[in-house]
Amino acid sequence: MKEYKIHSGWQNTLHEVIYEADTPMGKIFDLLLFVLIILSVILVMLESVDEIDENYHRPLLVMEWIITGFFTLEYIARIISIKKPWKYIFSFYGVIDFISTIPLYLSYILAGSQVLIAVRAFRLLRIFRILKLVKFMGEASQLKSALKASRTKIAVFIYVVLILSVIMGTIMYLIESDEAGFTSIPRSIYWTIVTLTTVGYGDIAPETNFGQFLATVIMILGYGIIAVPTGIVTVEFSKHGKEKAGTNVVHTNTQACPSCTAEKHRDDAKHCYNCGELL
Amino acid sequence: MKEYKIHSGWQNTLHEVIYEADTPMGKIFDLLLFVLIILSVILVMLESVDEIDENYHRPLLVMEWIITGFFTLEYIARIISIKKPWKYIFSFYGVIDFISTIPLYLSYILAGSQVLIAVRAFRLLRIFRILKLVKFMGEASQLKSALKASRTKIAVFIYVVLILSVIMGTIMYLIESDEAGFTSIPRSIYWTIVTLTTVGYGDIAPETNFGQFLATVIMILGYGIIAVPTGIVTVEFSKHGKEKAGTNVVHTNTQACPSCTAEKHRDDAKHCYNCGELL
Amino acid sequence: MKEYKIHSGWQNTLHEVIYEADTPMGKIFDLLLFVLIILSVILVMLESVDEIDENYHRPLLVMEWIITGFFTLEYIARIISIKKPWKYIFSFYGVIDFISTIPLYLSYILAGSQVLIAVRAFRLLRIFRILKLVKFMGEASQLKSALKASRTKIAVFIYVVLILSVIMGTIMYLIESDEAGFTSIPRSIYWTIVTLTTVGYGDIAPETNFGQFLATVIMILGYGIIAVPTGIVTVEFSKHGKEKAGTNVVHTNTQACPSCTAEKHRDDAKHCYNCGELL
Amino acid sequence: MKEYKIHSGWQNTLHEVIYEADTPMGKIFDLLLFVLIILSVILVMLESVDEIDENYHRPLLVMEWIITGFFTLEYIARIISIKKPWKYIFSFYGVIDFISTIPLYLSYILAGSQVLIAVRAFRLLRIFRILKLVKFMGEASQLKSALKASRTKIAVFIYVVLILSVIMGTIMYLIESDEAGFTSIPRSIYWTIVTLTTVGYGDIAPETNFGQFLATVIMILGYGIIAVPTGIVTVEFSKHGKEKAGTNVVHTNTQACPSCTAEKHRDDAKHCYNCGELL
Repeated sequence: MKEYKIHSGWQNTLHEVIYEADTPMGKIFDLLLFVLIILSVILVMLESVDEIDENYHRPLLVMEWIITGFFTLEYIARIISIKKPWKYIFSFYGVIDFISTIPLYLSYILAGSQVLIAVRAFRLLRIFRILKLVKFMGEASQLKSALKASRTKIAVFIYVVLILSVIMGTIMYLIESDEAGFTSIPRSIYWTIVTLTTVGYGDIAPETNFGQFLATVIMILGYGIIAVPTGIVTVEFSKHGKEKAGTNVVHTNTQACPSCTAEKHRDDAKHCYNCGELL
Repeated sequence: MKEYKIHSGWQNTLHEVIYEADTPMGKIFDLLLFVLIILSVILVMLESVDEIDENYHRPLLVMEWIITGFFTLEYIARIISIKKPWKYIFSFYGVIDFISTIPLYLSYILAGSQVLIAVRAFRLLRIFRILKLVKFMGEASQLKSALKASRTKIAVFIYVVLILSVIMGTIMYLIESDEAGFTSIPRSIYWTIVTLTTVGYGDIAPETNFGQFLATVIMILGYGIIAVPTGIVTVEFSKHGKEKAGTNVVHTNTQACPSCTAEKHRDDAKHCYNCGELL
Repeated sequence: MKEYKIHSGWQNTLHEVIYEADTPMGKIFDLLLFVLIILSVILVMLESVDEIDENYHRPLLVMEWIITGFFTLEYIARIISIKKPWKYIFSFYGVIDFISTIPLYLSYILAGSQVLIAVRAFRLLRIFRILKLVKFMGEASQLKSALKASRTKIAVFIYVVLILSVIMGTIMYLIESDEAGFTSIPRSIYWTIVTLTTVGYGDIAPETNFGQFLATVIMILGYGIIAVPTGIVTVEFSKHGKEKAGTNVVHTNTQACPSCTAEKHRDDAKHCYNCGELL
Repeated sequence: MKEYKIHSGWQNTLHEVIYEADTPMGKIFDLLLFVLIILSVILVMLESVDEIDENYHRPLLVMEWIITGFFTLEYIARIISIKKPWKYIFSFYGVIDFISTIPLYLSYILAGSQVLIAVRAFRLLRIFRILKLVKFMGEASQLKSALKASRTKIAVFIYVVLILSVIMGTIMYLIESDEAGFTSIPRSIYWTIVTLTTVGYGDIAPETNFGQFLATVIMILGYGIIAVPTGIVTVEFSKHGKEKAGTNVVHTNTQACPSCTAEKHRDDAKHCYNCGELL
């Protein structure tokens, strides 16, 4: 028989609050986390607006410190309340949690580093963990599996789009002059994709007659090509809808195994399906 | 037995004209209302064009007074011809009717208030009540139920689009300079959504090579992502088409209960299905 | 028994050449007509290009005279070779043929009239008559019947889009200043439709923060809304594909009744299904 | 019995390496070819960027020489290792291979010719041959056959879009002035297609009220029309998915017949299905 590090009572309670959403405390914790993540991302946005940053630099910094403080405590709590800390630390969400915590500390070491802003934006990814608890995740997983099934078809599609863009971009580079914005082949390819996907900024636009004719061809191509991914995904969706009707649905809850963090246990499960640990 | 305020004859006639569209008078009333609503919205538009407002300010104002007069009378008639006035006043259309009536009166209290223009545009919503009488509302309700059924899936979809926009927008803000228009993260997110939805104004456009490369990635993502809502809605539509074939269709008429304003009574109904009042 | 004006032999031959495509002569005639229509439209285009018109005004005019001459002869031949000329003259294609013939003559009466250019472009519509003979018209009629079946749904959809555009356009007019291009409500509505349909010129673009936020909402709405017509049409297409499998196909030919110009007679028809005239 | 030129041992080995991907050597060869093709296309792109070409002209030229050398050797090897060289030389890939090899040699004859750049971009097409070996080609052929089946419908669709563009373009030319960019009918048609396909550059944009109204109509048309190809392709995809379930799948390998280059032999084939040559 396997032996696990014995968890004391407070650790079990902490585990339930942090990793699960079945108890009232767990729900409050998740809600608080949700609000703080959104808040921290809004802070990053506000700081980037020059007028706001000039006038409210101090309060913004204070709030960032509060959020960082909470994230630090949460990160430590997550480690001490789990039986196999290393498994958590190197899991996807473990790394995201760590990255979410450190930017402010790092800003004193790497003063003025712009990259830290991007790192703070990545905190948004943490939301996905909280949302896994919400009911519509079933829908999301259905979407995901439909997209997964049409993965190869979509890859072929994107591949053809790229080849087309390179060839068309090169031809447009030869036809159009530098004045119209076609200064190099990569830039022409950029223009071709802008056109093919029907985005059409207009920062670069053909000026010669033949260039405009070719642009027209690319547009109609792009207009027609968009039917392909739509067709693929639609067929895949309708397949999945039909399959689902025939499968046996198992009700799962939001518990995570205190030992290995495996999730989606059956409602009537007594042991973790992954490591056998008692739930 | 419940007791209701007894309606006199003229009140019943008024109720029939205003709330129903089965009698010739009721149809004429609805048509007149339809024309006046459209007219009042066109008036708002014309007033906003400087050249027109300068030259025709007086006739425009006169017409606005005529429309407001009619709306006022109609609003009063609606209240006195119904048995439970408060139920109407606080219903969705009751509020819309009130808001449609007051802008001109308010303009003498709140002189120069711009918001009144928007309020006048909301009159358009009144059209939906008239249209409920038109035959193609059956189709609309089919569309609505299909959209309702795919609501959660579409919410998940929009959610993913927003997360993607925030992260991509932040990265673009770091890459691109202020000159290209990426002056703050919110503005970069605005640009990302402009690109992802293939709108592509071109008021903000990446100028660096790496920025243009990332823009390309966002475009192809957006081009592919559009397949998802299309797939969802298509599958839902085809489901509803099939279900409909098996349901029992009940023919309804355009009568509204004189007591509780409940609608869509069966053609052979003698009593309101909601409050039991005789129809 | 009904009596018809007796057609002499040359009239019958002419009728066969002009109205049908089963004989070699009929095919050559249709091909010639096809080339001349395309040519006449290209002429209109070339004339509109200033550099070309300045240098080649005379040859362009000569060619226009040749085409007009042919169209005039053809129009006369169509009238004299048919038994009931008035029926042809006031038919859809009869009117189009007349309009296609007169612009050059009119240009001497209404000197410098720009509208004649548009009239000449309408000649393109004549192509549809020739194409009715081509095999893929079966496909076109399938497309058409699918679109017809989803007509009401698409009307509801466009209606909702328009209401949305008026309300959103009015709000944007209030928010954005004249400098950004939102000079009047009609122009703001124009911008809203440009945005909602994901066209996005960028000639008008929001500049305030709140305006850009609302623009973002409109874009995502437009991005999602596009799924609706696609879903409608797709479901209709798949229905029609299934129905078609069960219908009895009748083979028709390209003959037109010499008396009443009715078309799509069965291959084995001896009499016109419309007027009983011998084919 | 037919007689073939007897292949010596090294020719057979060479054939296996170059034309097949079942042996380790064949796989390495294909990978090398893949890398060189991508590299040669990147070289073309880099050369077109002025700053890069000025500073690194020499190394870029050296690399182009290395790639051309490899392609030359490969082309010769392909010819000598096959039994019927002429069949290869005039095959699609034979011509592409030849064209891929010559640009650098030609650049000494046709000094400064821009067209050679485009020719070098066509090397990308060679990738398709290598990819035929990769597993997801099955998906691609499914996509292809679905597109093929909906070919006529798509042709009708593009035809209608073009007619619409010409007529709408002509009308817009008459309405809008030269200042707005509508300088000639071809340019107006270019604008119409830009609008109809929802690309919307904004280099040309209507300025008059009526022009903007018409533009609005074109946009909503384009927004609705996009549903048609999507519907067609989706229905075709779902048909193919169903048909596939009923067909007998034959497993093929990547061998090419050493005599006639026919491909897609059954895994258990002993003779070429095309020419009977022993595999």
